[in-house]
Amino acid sequence: MNIKITGTGSYIPDTIEKNDAFHKHTFLNNDGSIINYPNDVIIEKFQAITGIAERRYAKEHLNSSDLGFFAAERAITDAEIDPETIDYIIVAHNFGDVKHNTIQSDMLPSLAVRIKHSLRIKNPKCVAYDILFGCPGWIEGVIQAKAFIQSGMAKRCLVIGTETLSRVVDKHDRDAMIFSDGAGATIIEATEEEGGILAHETASFTYEEAYYLYFGNSNNQNLSKDTRYIKMDGRKIYEFALVHVPQAIKTCIDNSGVHIKDIKKIFIHQANEKMDEAILKRLYRLYRTEIPEDIMPMSIQTLGNSSVATVPTLLDLVRNNKLENHNLTKGDIIVFASVGAGMHINAFAYKY
Amino acid sequence: MNIKITGTGSYIPDTIEKNDAFHKHTFLNNDGSIINYPNDVIIEKFQAITGIAERRYAKEHLNSSDLGFFAAERAITDAEIDPETIDYIIVAHNFGDVKHNTIQSDMLPSLAVRIKHSLRIKNPKCVAYDILFGCPGWIEGVIQAKAFIQSGMAKRCLVIGTETLSRVVDKHDRDAMIFSDGAGATIIEATEEEGGILAHETASFTYEEAYYLYFGNSNNQNLSKDTRYIKMDGRKIYEFALVHVPQAIKTCIDNSGVHIKDIKKIFIHQANEKMDEAILKRLYRLYRTEIPEDIMPMSIQTLGNSSVATVPTLLDLVRNNKLENHNLTKGDIIVFASVGAGMHINAFAYKY
Repeated sequence: MNIKITGTGSYIPDTIEKNDAFHKHTFLNNDGSIINYPNDVIIEKFQAITGIAERRYAKEHLNSSDLGFFAAERAITDAEIDPETIDYIIVAHNFGDVKHNTIQSDMLPSLAVRIKHSLRIKNPKCVAYDILFGCPGWIEGVIQAKAFIQSGMAKRCLVIGTETLSRVVDKHDRDAMIFSDGAGATIIEATEEEGGILAHETASFTYEEAYYLYFGNSNNQNLSKDTRYIKMDGRKIYEFALVHVPQAIKTCIDNSGVHIKDIKKIFIHQANEKMDEAILKRLYRLYRTEIPEDIMPMSIQTLGNSSVATVPTLLDLVRNNKLENHNLTKGDIIVFASVGAGMHINAFAYKY
Repeated sequence: MNIKITGTGSYIPDTIEKNDAFHKHTFLNNDGSIINYPNDVIIEKFQAITGIAERRYAKEHLNSSDLGFFAAERAITDAEIDPETIDYIIVAHNFGDVKHNTIQSDMLPSLAVRIKHSLRIKNPKCVAYDILFGCPGWIEGVIQAKAFIQSGMAKRCLVIGTETLSRVVDKHDRDAMIFSDGAGATIIEATEEEGGILAHETASFTYEEAYYLYFGNSNNQNLSKDTRYIKMDGRKIYEFALVHVPQAIKTCIDNSGVHIKDIKKIFIHQANEKMDEAILKRLYRLYRTEIPEDIMPMSIQTLGNSSVATVPTLLDLVRNNKLENHNLTKGDIIVFASVGAGMHINAFAYKY
């Protein structure tokens, strides 16, 4: 038995928020002090490092569970399956449904329940739950689906990553420009077809790193201390990622029995363009091998960092030939990898 | 290989909130209208149905992840294991960390990450994640641990249920009296010892039932519409539970190959005393069997409904002979069952 991705879908919100839109922001340092550069310099520097020129925001009346539902519908259609045959719906997110212009997370019922309800699935044996695992949540959901299939508890799982980070950013923080909204979904199932998941790797670094990403107050110290936003220590995350992510990906590749030269694509969490490029460089340096051309599809330039949604969305784009110079052919060996709040790192190697 | 519970721990907050404390509340109907009874009649009726005389509230400086950490420490000590040997930390909750007198849920990082950090576990191969699955979250965490162990992805898991429902209740709603704070934790591991998990059953009823428990506005219509609280349609939940929970438990028992007469204890989610008694009555009626004495340990009278924490706390109390007329002996067949927001139902049969 093999475990394969038999359908993908994504929901990319229509509303494009270009970098220009941030010219009106009053950016402050973490300690509340004024930043000694005009906004056009701040934004230019930001784009040079992250690669982000624009990002997507969900329409005001839509929530994270709506985005996830749209992506799920497309994955089900793509896989050509009867939704009543799904054994598990696993939804990765980190903030629940946060209505536009409010600050509470709504997770009662869970997003998986809302999505199953919207999909009009009746089968009570389809178990619907949410997982919180930082940005690597969708990959971890796939790994959990693998466990359910291998243990005989499931045959077919729907794994979704969905997030509306635009609702939890601090507009006085330059990092607000990183984050975006979106959703990606996949059908994962047991099959007799060749290929599928070859190996996986997960690590949770919490001893020193637990609060590198955290929920904290605005840089504007006049705002309520009772309202918190997504916050990150970008420098520490960058250094952490460069040390640990290439090694975790290497462990995964080595455990899969595949040679580095056989890898066709690496789908990595779209966190920051420079960071992703540095990770790739270090990975190939571990193998003393040149980086092949067009190995790493990127969507961050126009889609920003939508957390759990970046990797499944990227896969959906490439499968549908929507990223130039990127496509997949049956038999291709590919790798998925992510890093994020926890700090968690995970990866899986896959034969397409 | 068998899968057994090798350690338990619980954290029952010190602060006792007696029913008397609710005399000062202004209770309203869902539509905002005044209730035509004085508070002493409301409270007396409440106690007659739910069995709840008092409940526990966490100290103001403590959050859900702190309670979970205290319970986890005790489970680790009880199991006499090195915490560095834990492969998974699975934390069930539904609202994240909600600081006293605030309304935001903080789940960045996840509660599992916070607890692993507090336990000072260094091993990055110990994967820490949160699951949202309504009140049945702890049982579902055990079932997921079983999948990881059966698939070879883990040998030893720490499964925690923790909640501070006192922080999300609407003080104008009579249902506020149901909810309480607490945490329970267990070590689940692969063992050659006889017994362990015999069978499990999970069902998610979302077609009609998704919003029987939901996050909604206060019954006091003068309060902000942007602030929401735990809300339930008690009558629908009661009717749902009576139809579906006995059948789910029966399926689990039948799949385990055990005879109903061999069951020594049923540990059921402490939602409502009358409801739990009605479920038990219907279960035994399905088997046309008399209900044995002392089959169902109850803690709701003094601990209230602490959601994901009730079942592991109840097990910890019985294992430590802290509930009169209840104890466990090696070889006893027991059943765990829960029902809650989703609506989810789950159960597992276990040989102690």
